[in-house]
Amino acid sequence: MTALLRRYLPVLDWGRTYSRATLSSDVMAAVIVTIMLIPQSLAYALLAGLPPEAGIYASIVPILLYAVFGTSRALAVGPVAVVSLMTAAAIGQVAEQGTAGYAVAALTLALLSGAILLAMGLFRLGFLANFLSHPVIAGFITASGILIAASQLKHILGIEAHGHSLIGILGGLAAGLDGANLVTVVIGVAAAGFLFWARKSLKPLLLRVRVPGKLADAVAKAGPVAAVVATTLAVWHFGLSERGVAIVGTVPQGLPPFTLPSFSPDLIGALFVPALLISIIGFVESISVAQTLAAKRRQRIDPDQELIGLGTANLGAAFTGGYPVTGGFARSVVNFDAGAATPAAGAFTAIGLAIAAVALTPLVYFLPKATLAATIIVAVLSLVDLRILRRTWRYSKADFVAVSATILLTLGLGVETGVLAGVIASIGLHLYKTSRPHVAEVGLVPGTQHFRNINRHDVKTDANLVSLRVDESLYFVNARFLEDLILDRISGEPPVRNIVLMCSAVNEIDYSALESLEAINQRLKGLGIGLHLSEVKGPVMDRLKTSHFLDDLNGQVFLAHYDAWQALATGDRPTLAAE
Amino acid sequence: MTALLRRYLPVLDWGRTYSRATLSSDVMAAVIVTIMLIPQSLAYALLAGLPPEAGIYASIVPILLYAVFGTSRALAVGPVAVVSLMTAAAIGQVAEQGTAGYAVAALTLALLSGAILLAMGLFRLGFLANFLSHPVIAGFITASGILIAASQLKHILGIEAHGHSLIGILGGLAAGLDGANLVTVVIGVAAAGFLFWARKSLKPLLLRVRVPGKLADAVAKAGPVAAVVATTLAVWHFGLSERGVAIVGTVPQGLPPFTLPSFSPDLIGALFVPALLISIIGFVESISVAQTLAAKRRQRIDPDQELIGLGTANLGAAFTGGYPVTGGFARSVVNFDAGAATPAAGAFTAIGLAIAAVALTPLVYFLPKATLAATIIVAVLSLVDLRILRRTWRYSKADFVAVSATILLTLGLGVETGVLAGVIASIGLHLYKTSRPHVAEVGLVPGTQHFRNINRHDVKTDANLVSLRVDESLYFVNARFLEDLILDRISGEPPVRNIVLMCSAVNEIDYSALESLEAINQRLKGLGIGLHLSEVKGPVMDRLKTSHFLDDLNGQVFLAHYDAWQALATGDRPTLAAE
Repeated sequence: MTALLRRYLPVLDWGRTYSRATLSSDVMAAVIVTIMLIPQSLAYALLAGLPPEAGIYASIVPILLYAVFGTSRALAVGPVAVVSLMTAAAIGQVAEQGTAGYAVAALTLALLSGAILLAMGLFRLGFLANFLSHPVIAGFITASGILIAASQLKHILGIEAHGHSLIGILGGLAAGLDGANLVTVVIGVAAAGFLFWARKSLKPLLLRVRVPGKLADAVAKAGPVAAVVATTLAVWHFGLSERGVAIVGTVPQGLPPFTLPSFSPDLIGALFVPALLISIIGFVESISVAQTLAAKRRQRIDPDQELIGLGTANLGAAFTGGYPVTGGFARSVVNFDAGAATPAAGAFTAIGLAIAAVALTPLVYFLPKATLAATIIVAVLSLVDLRILRRTWRYSKADFVAVSATILLTLGLGVETGVLAGVIASIGLHLYKTSRPHVAEVGLVPGTQHFRNINRHDVKTDANLVSLRVDESLYFVNARFLEDLILDRISGEPPVRNIVLMCSAVNEIDYSALESLEAINQRLKGLGIGLHLSEVKGPVMDRLKTSHFLDDLNGQVFLAHYDAWQALATGDRPTLAAE
Repeated sequence: MTALLRRYLPVLDWGRTYSRATLSSDVMAAVIVTIMLIPQSLAYALLAGLPPEAGIYASIVPILLYAVFGTSRALAVGPVAVVSLMTAAAIGQVAEQGTAGYAVAALTLALLSGAILLAMGLFRLGFLANFLSHPVIAGFITASGILIAASQLKHILGIEAHGHSLIGILGGLAAGLDGANLVTVVIGVAAAGFLFWARKSLKPLLLRVRVPGKLADAVAKAGPVAAVVATTLAVWHFGLSERGVAIVGTVPQGLPPFTLPSFSPDLIGALFVPALLISIIGFVESISVAQTLAAKRRQRIDPDQELIGLGTANLGAAFTGGYPVTGGFARSVVNFDAGAATPAAGAFTAIGLAIAAVALTPLVYFLPKATLAATIIVAVLSLVDLRILRRTWRYSKADFVAVSATILLTLGLGVETGVLAGVIASIGLHLYKTSRPHVAEVGLVPGTQHFRNINRHDVKTDANLVSLRVDESLYFVNARFLEDLILDRISGEPPVRNIVLMCSAVNEIDYSALESLEAINQRLKGLGIGLHLSEVKGPVMDRLKTSHFLDDLNGQVFLAHYDAWQALATGDRPTLAAE
């Protein structure tokens, strides 16, 4: 019972050894992360098409729940760029931005996402995340970064534009370009320029003037806060909001409200697939960050428990005015670098954000949306990495096809189509590759007991026997292939008396392949040719023994292929075989 | 050019050597098949919900086109039970049975099916059929047989009932039971009883009274014709159609008309997925029959050319008043047994059916629908074989799950859902199995150079080195698994200095797995542990060489695992290793 409780409540583990030292590092990390999160949360809410406070609310209760149920010690949970974009794409299909229905749809999406993650955790379905191959994830993140940056250009230009594909977004921008607001453009471009400069050049500059490394790092990371403060003051002081600069405006003061998502079956039906994709993408992003950080401190995280942690965090978001959340890369790295020792750092961050929500929201009244857009653009462009195309091209064309399809379809048709296409392409290409496995005809390397491909090595063969090494598990996708291959091999050749299948690389023989082997055996028997197996693996052999195949086999099963050679080879040279 | 023509027109091959002897066997076979096909074609049209002549039309031009483009010498193309059921399910969703729209939808379905098959043939996509595993096909055919038999009960009872799932069909029958027509029931039950008896007991009986084998066989196979003749005469003679017995009625006399399918994008969109499923199921059924028959005469068929043959046959059906067709099991076996030597037998059958369409249709005016239903029921119940459940249960639980899902969902939700669920279940279970591959820690069998699982054999291990044999290709689905496994293996143990991955069963390392190996290498390097590979296959090694992995590898690649042992083993016993 205690073990079960501990498994599902990791807080019981680290909570018992909590010390004053860990407390102070956690508080320190929390202060830094809180300062960073205030503008970031507002910005991501903007990206998701939600009111700014939704971003802050989504960071408070979810972070607390993750602290109780999560296993990573440094992961910071909250709104992130890609999930915010996916949220906008999903709820944009069922409700108009700015309406009450839109906010409720966001809550429902968080509810569904939480339920899906929780179910995956309880049923230990974390392996589903493996269906996303690395190239597909890389391509998806890159394409999403481009889409997000493009979608924020409207705030920099001060115009209205919508669209979920790159062409749609750019078309919207082009159509609205006449209405661009010059002051907004100046603020946005200045903020973006400053942020790019701060990200690339500020730290090296500070180091050159002998600022200590840690401080230089912190100052450079505070770039977004500086941009927020400076542009807010500028708008307030020069009255720029009256000159058409869009500002954040009134953000309600107070703790996150209790909210109810919709349980309408229609809405749930419409949002289920998007919620599933958000859950899996969010989980993959979160677990990669968590594993990377845990490895640095030789800690382990439990993927299934992570699902539970993220699931409860999303359920929390659904009932406290938020939207789907996950573990974010940037915020987690900052948290880790700032010295967060336990999930309590997250709890303190939540307290910090709660104070901000209660006391500080009037301060962002004059914050220009263009500044938030600039922080998003600078943040997401670091996600864009097209080198994956060149790397996969060199290493594996199948992976290249998968990553290209993901990028093109994400840009062209939006995030959901893109990620689904990537998954389908990866699985399809894998099945296609295994449907035409490599099969080598092998011969004996003289003076050894080893067998090698007759086309690559100078080996001994025998008129009496054809040795085929199948380099793939035998299953339904390639069952017929083997049948065709063997029947082709024996037709038109000088007569062969025995065929030996060398099964050292056959990790499975499923029922379809069993039936194919039975068919091959029957046909060869009809032709007076023996069928033998060698080097069958233990688990494969165990299963074959449950069928009649071995009883009916017109041949033997040899432990080593050399045994088969010794038993069956006659010493006749193949060229003399047409006796 | 000639070679290309010969490839796409197999008729040029067998046509050149056509002799008087082959002519007479072909004509003989055609006469027998024609007699068998007349009632069968009417019956399958009834099953598809189409007027009876559609079944005959679907057997004339398609069979001619297949004779030109197909490669099987005995395959008889035309309406078959499962495809007729799938046709009814597909077009029942877009049009009301008995309307002109329904017949046009059937033509459009044949057009789409033909186009899909032709495209698959030209682009050599025949391997797509491999995605249907044998158990899924077996389950689907069995469940379809049950559905078809149930759907025909309404004709035996003489009532109206609809439904595409077993529950729907049985519910419809129960609701309409009060309206059952006693005379119809008597005819239907008598016909079905007679046909079952003819199928099971007539041939043995004839043999016992010394009728020669071939004749006994022919008489037994003529059962349906006898039932048709007897019940038609009974209805005509006793005027039973006035007592509520549904009859075939007027069938237009004449050759197949020229018809135009609809090219409406809406209709094509609605029918595309059903057409794809019909094409693949039809192709799988046809190719199995063709391969079985070809093997008996040591002939080969070309699957991609078969797609072209079936594709043109379906296009022919679309323009001559038919509906989707494929190579049928029963008719092909009869054709083969009757001695058909070339596809010309099919052409002669088409001529026979054309004569029937022109001259004989008035004779079936009084043919009761109950008799046709009885012939369908008796024919399809031979398809039902639930033993596949027991066999897969014993051999492989994953295959059992796939076949159960296919049967239950086909019966419960209809043919399309059923076959899709089967495909998804097969692929999903395959991915799931390969996502958790068997990994054995191996040690040296004393006195040999062989390595075996340390948990199964008494082998030598070494404190300095952990040898892991991975029994699966490394690809995205299991990339993370290996990472977790190795990190688990090295945590908490007495320190290990070297890990060797034995790759004899690794047939592929995709880009995701490469990145995982890179991550493993980095982490192990950080811990001062070497990572080595052994027995890497040629194609896998070729690919690894295109990446930086081998340059960064904190260890070596050994040709044989024994080489790794000799280079790395220190001779320390593992239990003494905590030095």
